[in-house]
Amino acid sequence: MKIMIAGLGLIGGSMAKSLVRAGYSVGGYDLPQVLRRAEEEGAVSEHLRAEDCDVVFVALPPDAAMAYIGGTAFKEGAIVADICGVKEALEQFVYARPRSFRYVGCHPMAGKEVSGFENSSETLFDGASMIVVENEHTDAAAIETLERLFSEMGFGLVKHCSAAYHDAKIAYTSQLAHIVSNAYVKSPTADGFPGFTGGSFQDMTRIAGVDEQVWTRLYMLNRGAVTEELRRLIGHLNEYLAALEGGDESALRELLKLGRLRKAQLDEERKIL
Amino acid sequence: MKIMIAGLGLIGGSMAKSLVRAGYSVGGYDLPQVLRRAEEEGAVSEHLRAEDCDVVFVALPPDAAMAYIGGTAFKEGAIVADICGVKEALEQFVYARPRSFRYVGCHPMAGKEVSGFENSSETLFDGASMIVVENEHTDAAAIETLERLFSEMGFGLVKHCSAAYHDAKIAYTSQLAHIVSNAYVKSPTADGFPGFTGGSFQDMTRIAGVDEQVWTRLYMLNRGAVTEELRRLIGHLNEYLAALEGGDESALRELLKLGRLRKAQLDEERKIL
Repeated sequence: MKIMIAGLGLIGGSMAKSLVRAGYSVGGYDLPQVLRRAEEEGAVSEHLRAEDCDVVFVALPPDAAMAYIGGTAFKEGAIVADICGVKEALEQFVYARPRSFRYVGCHPMAGKEVSGFENSSETLFDGASMIVVENEHTDAAAIETLERLFSEMGFGLVKHCSAAYHDAKIAYTSQLAHIVSNAYVKSPTADGFPGFTGGSFQDMTRIAGVDEQVWTRLYMLNRGAVTEELRRLIGHLNEYLAALEGGDESALRELLKLGRLRKAQLDEERKIL
Repeated sequence: MKIMIAGLGLIGGSMAKSLVRAGYSVGGYDLPQVLRRAEEEGAVSEHLRAEDCDVVFVALPPDAAMAYIGGTAFKEGAIVADICGVKEALEQFVYARPRSFRYVGCHPMAGKEVSGFENSSETLFDGASMIVVENEHTDAAAIETLERLFSEMGFGLVKHCSAAYHDAKIAYTSQLAHIVSNAYVKSPTADGFPGFTGGSFQDMTRIAGVDEQVWTRLYMLNRGAVTEELRRLIGHLNEYLAALEGGDESALRELLKLGRLRKAQLDEERKIL
């Protein structure tokens, strides 16, 4: 099986390295200097053309991924799987065109607050979840092949869902969290924070440093769901603000209690999984 | 030196255990069943009355701490140090009364998202920061004694500041973070989150489950600073919301960029410390 990875950043580089760890040799596609470094580190060892590959992982940001998928001649029946953080936009792009490859939208639930091949790791996906998007076009054999590869890469779990379901969940679990973190650091009170936190502040702001080029596009391509979640969160925060401004102790206590009970419910969900 | 710890919860219990680890024997004050357990585990080994102690750590929630300090006969010149998360309210209480003890407000920057003696640990403070509040009433020798004890408990750093400075910083680094986390989990989209997050959601919501009795009081006792920080954060979040609602890609990119640059600046501060 000939495998190529287009885009050797944090995710693509980690996919290459984890496939090498599993005994595969893979081809790569990226800027010359990135490709050279990936070859030097043994993450990429084959010179492959996309048209000769059975599986092509497209580990590029959304716009670049669409440009690559739209502009590349793939082998007939090849599996082409992107790993973008938005899935409906990709599906709309791919299914609007005639194609002879088998498309599967994926999204690995693993990352770091840093990017680039230099931060990639063969262990990034160990035990992580991979989301695989399915719809009426999806080829069952392609899913089977990918699931085997994902397992070999170290993923501990594969979740199947529609693109809309994925986009709604990710708008909340990831995209909203990055906005909150990015906004949180903007208070001038953050100056001189070292020594004045035991970890809450660090957790809240770990992911504040988003690449604004990539993330602006991700937000725009999932604008409806992100807008809804952000509006909802601001609505909730305004309830606490009103209680504080009004000095309404019992209202504040009730708001905090509801959050505590909700958190306990979610902790149970995690245990059940 | 006779040391007593009033309140053997997560913090008080950990103080007792870390002092035992350092070779001290300490007395405790709590409900009979908690005290019995602390004795069984060797965290508390002396039967001391507060009036015989040279150092009394008051590891109780704010109202209970004030009631205890106001209602206990301490030895003349004893060091009485509370560890509450708000400091101006405690100072106002303590300094409004005649006293023959030496009061020092403290706040350890260590905690867990669980509470109680059963979660206390002799290593909780290892490498952590302790904030020591100073003002015109502060006794230099008391600070010296406490700093030695804190170092022996494992603290890696002591920060000195005024109560107002402490309260402003903590309103932001801790109290606001707990509100955001508590509000974040309230979206119905959180249902079924397992498998749909790589860690951002967990970090954002780790501290959501606050004890609403304790935290409501902490918020009320630092209402001005918390209100200001929450209002500011909502203001920032509304900027992202406006950009999303208006589909203003360049405005959103600029907002994210400012957050990224601010995060980088704060990361530098951390390195300098």
